[in-house]
Amino acid sequence: MSQTNGRDVFSRDDLKKLIDPAVIAVVGASATPGGFGKRTMENLSGFTGRVYGVNPRYDTVEGRPCVPGLRDLPELPDCVIVCVAGHLVLETLEEAARVGARGAVVYASGFSETGLEEGIAAQVAIAELAQRTGLRVAGPNCVGLINLGTGGAMNFMTDSGAITAGAAGGIAIVSQSGALGYTVLQAVQRGVGVSHYLASGNSADVDVCDYIAYLAQEPTAEVIICLMEGVKSGERFMQAARLADAAGKPLIVYKAGNGVKSGLAAMSHTGTLTGSTAAYEAACERAGAIWVDDLEALTEIASFFAKNPRGPAAPGVGIMSTSGGAGVINADKAEANDLELPALHESTRLALSEVVPAFGSIGNPADLTAEVLKDAATFAHCLDAFTADPGLGAVVVPLVFVHETTTGVRASILGQAGARTETALAAVWMNEWLEGPGSRDLDGDPKITLFRSAARCMRAIRLWQNWHTRRRTFDARPSSKRISDPAAAATIRGILAAVEDKSSALTEQQAKAALSAYGIAVPREALATTAEEAAEFADRLGYPVVLKIASADIQHKTEVGGVRLNLGSAGEVRAAAAEILHSVRSLAPGARIDGVSVQTMVGAGAEVLLGSRIDPQFGPMITVGSGGILVELLRDVSTQPAPVTADTARRMIASLRLHKILTGVRGDPGYDIDALVDVIVRFSEMVGDLADVLTEVDVNPLIVGRTGATAADALVVTGHPEAAAIQEGARNG
Amino acid sequence: MSQTNGRDVFSRDDLKKLIDPAVIAVVGASATPGGFGKRTMENLSGFTGRVYGVNPRYDTVEGRPCVPGLRDLPELPDCVIVCVAGHLVLETLEEAARVGARGAVVYASGFSETGLEEGIAAQVAIAELAQRTGLRVAGPNCVGLINLGTGGAMNFMTDSGAITAGAAGGIAIVSQSGALGYTVLQAVQRGVGVSHYLASGNSADVDVCDYIAYLAQEPTAEVIICLMEGVKSGERFMQAARLADAAGKPLIVYKAGNGVKSGLAAMSHTGTLTGSTAAYEAACERAGAIWVDDLEALTEIASFFAKNPRGPAAPGVGIMSTSGGAGVINADKAEANDLELPALHESTRLALSEVVPAFGSIGNPADLTAEVLKDAATFAHCLDAFTADPGLGAVVVPLVFVHETTTGVRASILGQAGARTETALAAVWMNEWLEGPGSRDLDGDPKITLFRSAARCMRAIRLWQNWHTRRRTFDARPSSKRISDPAAAATIRGILAAVEDKSSALTEQQAKAALSAYGIAVPREALATTAEEAAEFADRLGYPVVLKIASADIQHKTEVGGVRLNLGSAGEVRAAAAEILHSVRSLAPGARIDGVSVQTMVGAGAEVLLGSRIDPQFGPMITVGSGGILVELLRDVSTQPAPVTADTARRMIASLRLHKILTGVRGDPGYDIDALVDVIVRFSEMVGDLADVLTEVDVNPLIVGRTGATAADALVVTGHPEAAAIQEGARNG
Repeated sequence: MSQTNGRDVFSRDDLKKLIDPAVIAVVGASATPGGFGKRTMENLSGFTGRVYGVNPRYDTVEGRPCVPGLRDLPELPDCVIVCVAGHLVLETLEEAARVGARGAVVYASGFSETGLEEGIAAQVAIAELAQRTGLRVAGPNCVGLINLGTGGAMNFMTDSGAITAGAAGGIAIVSQSGALGYTVLQAVQRGVGVSHYLASGNSADVDVCDYIAYLAQEPTAEVIICLMEGVKSGERFMQAARLADAAGKPLIVYKAGNGVKSGLAAMSHTGTLTGSTAAYEAACERAGAIWVDDLEALTEIASFFAKNPRGPAAPGVGIMSTSGGAGVINADKAEANDLELPALHESTRLALSEVVPAFGSIGNPADLTAEVLKDAATFAHCLDAFTADPGLGAVVVPLVFVHETTTGVRASILGQAGARTETALAAVWMNEWLEGPGSRDLDGDPKITLFRSAARCMRAIRLWQNWHTRRRTFDARPSSKRISDPAAAATIRGILAAVEDKSSALTEQQAKAALSAYGIAVPREALATTAEEAAEFADRLGYPVVLKIASADIQHKTEVGGVRLNLGSAGEVRAAAAEILHSVRSLAPGARIDGVSVQTMVGAGAEVLLGSRIDPQFGPMITVGSGGILVELLRDVSTQPAPVTADTARRMIASLRLHKILTGVRGDPGYDIDALVDVIVRFSEMVGDLADVLTEVDVNPLIVGRTGATAADALVVTGHPEAAAIQEGARNG
Repeated sequence: MSQTNGRDVFSRDDLKKLIDPAVIAVVGASATPGGFGKRTMENLSGFTGRVYGVNPRYDTVEGRPCVPGLRDLPELPDCVIVCVAGHLVLETLEEAARVGARGAVVYASGFSETGLEEGIAAQVAIAELAQRTGLRVAGPNCVGLINLGTGGAMNFMTDSGAITAGAAGGIAIVSQSGALGYTVLQAVQRGVGVSHYLASGNSADVDVCDYIAYLAQEPTAEVIICLMEGVKSGERFMQAARLADAAGKPLIVYKAGNGVKSGLAAMSHTGTLTGSTAAYEAACERAGAIWVDDLEALTEIASFFAKNPRGPAAPGVGIMSTSGGAGVINADKAEANDLELPALHESTRLALSEVVPAFGSIGNPADLTAEVLKDAATFAHCLDAFTADPGLGAVVVPLVFVHETTTGVRASILGQAGARTETALAAVWMNEWLEGPGSRDLDGDPKITLFRSAARCMRAIRLWQNWHTRRRTFDARPSSKRISDPAAAATIRGILAAVEDKSSALTEQQAKAALSAYGIAVPREALATTAEEAAEFADRLGYPVVLKIASADIQHKTEVGGVRLNLGSAGEVRAAAAEILHSVRSLAPGARIDGVSVQTMVGAGAEVLLGSRIDPQFGPMITVGSGGILVELLRDVSTQPAPVTADTARRMIASLRLHKILTGVRGDPGYDIDALVDVIVRFSEMVGDLADVLTEVDVNPLIVGRTGATAADALVVTGHPEAAAIQEGARNG
């Protein structure tokens, strides 16, 4: 529906007049209560630039001059807000472009969101106009924008100009859904500072990726929150995210609709395990963005990033509690987030011991007792002692009893202590009076971050540590060089070209040949047409062997008695081959049978799942996880865009629970992780090379032995993803 | 420290004068600003009963009469609030008892919480006084109580009388820590209704269990929230929880400090996997209490239970959204909590179709669009349509934009719709303006529950469904009859009596004999002293066999080369036995060696962990989980108090991820679950019978085959738990 898939993100200059105009014209400005035209003019009452109404029925609206048409304006408008009905939108935009406007906001709905042909056509017309004229359009079906720094509340939400006046701060909010973004914006009403609210609506022209790119270069935006349901171009999202990362601005991404059920029906394990959300998450990670799946956590996490732009000076976290229970609860959540609570430094202990009574505890968590709250100087002394501790990069102060005499007074002491230190300082509001005394001061403090949940506080610190660690180590990474044969892709394209049915699974033999071309070990095998021949081949391959029926028509080999494992002698092989052929002929009477595949039996080892799907937005993704029977049991997977470097492969492995088995448990020496890394990189190169022709790939199990790793079975689905997805359930093995 | 471990919970009559007094005397009442005496008198200004100050320095305090001593009171006091310093507490309590008071609240600290001998002794003196005189004492080191129905704010928290005035409602809060309980109580300041706030402090006499028992019989309390760090008597906690359950009152339990690290160091897998929190959780489940590990969720979950006492009339949940994104987010969280979102009934669809525009979606979740919000009648019409749907037991309405004109107006429409229906009705406040317009009305509404998180809303519905389902099905359960030999306990006590070291692990042979006595299958075995004898025994047992070194001195058999699996012939056994003896003699030179145990090799099957620990509060607990190598990988366990019925055993199995493997995955026929149930019940009976002499038991793995189940290895640790815990790491294997 969008015409913008092929282009790059817009530049800051492209969007400057839309988002940061000096002159705004409101087409359809009016005095009709509740109407878009009146609300927009009201919202712009605090705008620091110039505003004109455009409506032949008025000379002034809300005290602003009003002219009959856009061409009657006394000066060139930067941005035109289109309050007119849907059928008048296109001509209004034409006129706006004609008079030299560079931005437009379109509220009207009835476009592609209806799913109706005429609505879609009308939206395409807007997109084409935008492309042709260079007019940058937000919408249609868009709530509008707010630039809090200039009072530019260019939207129709009731009183949005009034509620955002004086609330300028470092958090920028970008949202596909105007409503969801607004729920976050309304944090200004408890004191949180915001720089921009940018809704994209139907995104006929400008979309969330463009907004992110703009904000990456906009000085007043320190942290970007992006709420979305999905993007139409993964590539453009990655571009935008990389711009934010390059500008050193944390980009926090929330995607509505993360349920696994929402994933595509798929043939492979990988498809059913990961769904499409995993691709978004992996793409965010790759681009340095921060994935948060909890709507209520967005504001607090963003605030913490905005207020602590330098990152942690030390890995430790200190918990300065004045109540034993609160300290324990916070320590629990720190533990759950793998945060380090180091012993306090000797100097900290010394400073605290001057004021903490004997029944308190100078540990980490500390329970300084309510005694230290009795006067401001003592509380400040303790805060300074904690923030000066060289082992602590962040200090958390739980607040329990809420009252003007407690939190009301302590908010300013905390603020002052925060101003004196570089250490991150967070307060946890452990009280059900959610907006009690002091909370507004802390929510609006330039340095302290207020959390209304210990769990969210510790999670924010964890994300903040990870984000800054990644940025610090990023430059040190070696550039990636491919390790597999560059000619392998051509080999596989040859195999694929010979396949008759273009949207189905390869045979096991073809799939293994593809892996082999990329240097991934597979069992040796030979195709026997008689039981006698099978026994001869087995003698040559060496025992034990596995027999599998070879037939392009049979996907579920075990169900027709087509597989026999662990055969130790020629006699066993001969008997088993005869049984397989007999069983398959009676249970799958119509199937074309190529013979019986005789394969060396792969030895014992850790069973790994290696998978791939081609995400419609983000392209080829690979998944590594616990394989074999553990697939269903554990759902223990890590997903990354393909190809990956050896470093990334190692990180993927380390993130799995399977890692314990690979490194060895209970005296077990473990398995060949280097070999696994090698296979993952080769596999990712194969997937990356062939993303245009592959749909899904499963290697399950990849057996990782004491030395080496062998793909014991493989499923390769080719052709168009949608065609393949229909064949749900078809699977080799 | 407490003297109350051996007694039953107090009755309602025992505590009536403490919690619901008509006459209160405040010893130490004063006019000194900030002092306990003044704050208490202030807090009681709205008390509907009579209040007297006791202090020779005043004639009146806060407008109430003040007398020199307790004996000077004009009438008998029901409850005495003791505001005096610690060293004067005991004589004040003596006097209170002497004049006929039946309850006392002691604020003073400096008792057993100091850990000092004199503090502990002073607390013991209070406990003895209470026992001797029948004076029921809350504290010491206690914030106090609030009875919101009578304005009895018997505590020293600043302004607590004022903030709780007019806030009476159905939620009772019981808390060991006064501070933590107060954080929940302060929900009254956003409109939530509370019946009692009861802090127990050091619990020298009355503790949280007694409070729960009181509230179970107190009509104004509809739901009980209990915050605790732990209880001293698990039995009394179970008594109290059962009283609440019998009264049909949901008891919601939150325990500070749930971290696994806080568990005891333990020899067994079970010990390290479960910690002590699992025992609390299992005990709660057994007694019908609701375990919640999220402090911020307590108020909302309690409100939902209080406002919907009848439970769900249908299993379905309806999501009535007016924004697509909000609907999807709520549906996601419903999915995560396994809630059913059925298709809407035809009559509901019909009613909605009258008002929902074409671009809306009449599904579940529904997106009715903002159109239906344009007038009150339409919104009410939609609410009525949803709540009348016969498939829906609960309806969830997400609220997005917060403004006087939206949520401010809709709160009363929601309240009215709630009053018209029996269906549970919840609103989800998806907005960062946490206490915006309408929120107070919804928080205080008698029928609507306001959640500030979609996840918490869906979790509350899940817990509410489970709780009511359990109550409905409870009576239908058959009574439990033991299935193992009642004489087995005596057999094992015989084995234990013969063991020299009373605080250590049994040998593998002894452990298996114990299991065998309870009817649990173990491998056949024979003890060989030479390699030749081992081969002879193997011939008799049948191949394949396992050899294990038999030595009371060797816990880690594999580490000294003392185990060989899957031996298929006499020759292999002979060689392996010689190698084992050689290896053990060189690697464990000092160990006494009984010989080599020759055992039948247990066939393939699902590996299950069966474990037990004796919880200091709740007694014998059993744990069932994924065994073998999966123990470390999955931490997939279910814990219940022992013994268990077959029904409970089945529920434990069903709650595991291992369940998938047991029932069969990918065409696998699965394993003998009936045999596993039988073993679990027998095992639980063994643990229940022998809780006084066992410390920890691990059966790992129990091999559950296609038919039958066999304990392949076992660890039994006997003796006093603390002694055993010191021997961390000692383990058979």
